[in-house]
Amino acid sequence: MNYPPSLQKLVEELSKLPSIGRKTASRLAFFMIEHPQDAQALAQSIFNVKNSLSHCKQCFGLSESDLCSICNNSTRDSEILCVVESAYNIFTIESSSIFKGYYHVLGGIISPMKGIGPSNLNICSLKKRVETQKIQELIIATNPTVEGEATAHYLMHELEDKVPLISRIAKGIPSGSDLEYIDQSTLVGSFEGRRSL
Amino acid sequence: MNYPPSLQKLVEELSKLPSIGRKTASRLAFFMIEHPQDAQALAQSIFNVKNSLSHCKQCFGLSESDLCSICNNSTRDSEILCVVESAYNIFTIESSSIFKGYYHVLGGIISPMKGIGPSNLNICSLKKRVETQKIQELIIATNPTVEGEATAHYLMHELEDKVPLISRIAKGIPSGSDLEYIDQSTLVGSFEGRRSL
Repeated sequence: MNYPPSLQKLVEELSKLPSIGRKTASRLAFFMIEHPQDAQALAQSIFNVKNSLSHCKQCFGLSESDLCSICNNSTRDSEILCVVESAYNIFTIESSSIFKGYYHVLGGIISPMKGIGPSNLNICSLKKRVETQKIQELIIATNPTVEGEATAHYLMHELEDKVPLISRIAKGIPSGSDLEYIDQSTLVGSFEGRRSL
Repeated sequence: MNYPPSLQKLVEELSKLPSIGRKTASRLAFFMIEHPQDAQALAQSIFNVKNSLSHCKQCFGLSESDLCSICNNSTRDSEILCVVESAYNIFTIESSSIFKGYYHVLGGIISPMKGIGPSNLNICSLKKRVETQKIQELIIATNPTVEGEATAHYLMHELEDKVPLISRIAKGIPSGSDLEYIDQSTLVGSFEGRRSL
């Protein structure tokens, strides 16, 4: 027996979300039917996000105004710029409080397989920022994947004569982990990046 | 660092869904930002479900018209009626193809703890159906929880002089399971419900 058409459509739309399978989608749909007010509020929030949220004109992070709250904050260290793949990464880094400079969101990574080249990313604007904003250190915080490393090397090559220091976040063993469960590439990174005690 | 207000609200609304924690809610919200068309379609589907879907006037299952597709299907066995807690249960039972009669959705179970009594459920309408529709067997398929069993007993008591046969779905060991992992109550039910081979 099929669901009524409108319910069927809702289950299909929910199934498109990451990590939501068909069974979970059905459960969520029935929850929404039983909690119509929560469901309405959720639908309204989705519309609101689309209407209110856009990209910061300077760093391409998420913002409801022209400049995001970080770019608008003049107390941060204007000499350090951290390059990340996506706006989500900014929130992750901010939650650790380790970084007090400004950000620049690439909006993806160079991926010939997916047809994404440097011109599809926010690299022109990055060059312009580096040239005009007296950046002393550029921290490249793309993910330590093959594509993330390739993008880091590309940026290094493009910007090395424009910034005094370009650094890359360390690859190594995560806190609380065990050498036994670490892959070779991470272990190599961890030895290469060792520091004297 | 907090999310922009509209994003924060979306994460909060997503967190209200069952089995969606804060981290998953963030991930879903960022997916929606990156896939605005899918997000719009989802929000629209939620609105559509609320506007199109209502309860079948006979069985209280879900339907987009007065009568659901099961109540509208005259080829089913009109002498057997299966009582379930929620409309979701109908789809579960239908997917097994084991039952060919009609359904009646209680819309919950008797639960003094939650202040739900018989008058809050679709029991009056069930009595009326039993009295007017020449039901030969009433299968009570509430869940084998304490409240589900109590509701089954209540229905048994209320309807036993109105239907020739009232039955209860079997409690027992699920297919593919192992005696070792079965709780005592299930094992008792399984022995009590044993059948000769």
